[in-house]
Amino acid sequence: MREFILFSRGVTKDFKLNDLPNAGRMDLVARCVSTAIFLSYSLRKDVKFHVILNGPPSPPLTITFFTNELKNVSPDERNIASHIKIAIRNFGIGKNSSEAGIYVEKKSFEEVVKDKVKEYGNENVFYLHADGEDIRNVEIKNNAVFILGDNKGIPKKEEAFLLRSGIKKISIGKIEYLSSQVIAIVNYEMDRRGL
Amino acid sequence: MREFILFSRGVTKDFKLNDLPNAGRMDLVARCVSTAIFLSYSLRKDVKFHVILNGPPSPPLTITFFTNELKNVSPDERNIASHIKIAIRNFGIGKNSSEAGIYVEKKSFEEVVKDKVKEYGNENVFYLHADGEDIRNVEIKNNAVFILGDNKGIPKKEEAFLLRSGIKKISIGKIEYLSSQVIAIVNYEMDRRGL
Repeated sequence: MREFILFSRGVTKDFKLNDLPNAGRMDLVARCVSTAIFLSYSLRKDVKFHVILNGPPSPPLTITFFTNELKNVSPDERNIASHIKIAIRNFGIGKNSSEAGIYVEKKSFEEVVKDKVKEYGNENVFYLHADGEDIRNVEIKNNAVFILGDNKGIPKKEEAFLLRSGIKKISIGKIEYLSSQVIAIVNYEMDRRGL
Repeated sequence: MREFILFSRGVTKDFKLNDLPNAGRMDLVARCVSTAIFLSYSLRKDVKFHVILNGPPSPPLTITFFTNELKNVSPDERNIASHIKIAIRNFGIGKNSSEAGIYVEKKSFEEVVKDKVKEYGNENVFYLHADGEDIRNVEIKNNAVFILGDNKGIPKKEEAFLLRSGIKKISIGKIEYLSSQVIAIVNYEMDRRGL
């Protein structure tokens, strides 16, 4: 399994599909999901994408996309965002499972990360940061979890938690890429290793 | 200068921002533009992105984004698509220059490629294709042009033209990525070389 965890300021309420940037950069979230899960004309196998929405009014909310179960998703931002919108609405009426392959829970960033450390061991969980060790020099196994932030990055408190948990910082270079570009590059680096 | 040329089936008429996929996959076009020109909180310097729209009703139409002059663009698909929409409309009333940094011309894919071969030499123009030589083994200079297709790829006739022109096929692997992912990866490979 390849997993991604995105810390986002996305809103935890209904939002307008015509104005994703003003919903806590839901455009960024949708672009990250799309980049993580799609290949040309197919979904990747064995990928889980978790986004923790930390925006108003009732953060946190974690939405998970699991490619092996997903149906009826398209790579455009508006389509992905529409599924997030439905997940938020469904959570509001008490549903933890939204559509096929989409899960929504009242779970914080730290809780999601802790679960993954327990599941895979902290040596298989990586924090993507410009100051980390070059990804090309880091041993990464088939089961791996990659953590990244949105345009504002991961807050200091949460970052301190990651480092305290023994999670390694890895880097794809000194350039500050868009979060979705980071994901495309990480997938590519893993693909090149045949993982 | 780093340049990208995208062969697209995007429409050459007005389209709905709420339904980009049905405008000849204008979502794909917008995502490619965004990935090519943006970094986190900034535009790349010295990047030109050319998309040749080959969809109905009056193909071809070439729209160029030049990062050194661009203003008021955001990375979300809807924003980029809105600038394409304006460019198409402006062309309809006889304008070749649309907004700052955005140009629109009645030019075909072959014409755009020929111009770039003349400008940079065919050894600096590359066709991205799964069957090409591994990009990591290819010498690429600072001034380089990368050609790719949309979800349906580059048609046989245009492909034959590329090969006849002595343009080299280069590859980022056997996996069929989304066009926007290909662009993120090419930018990354160039960035790692300090180009």
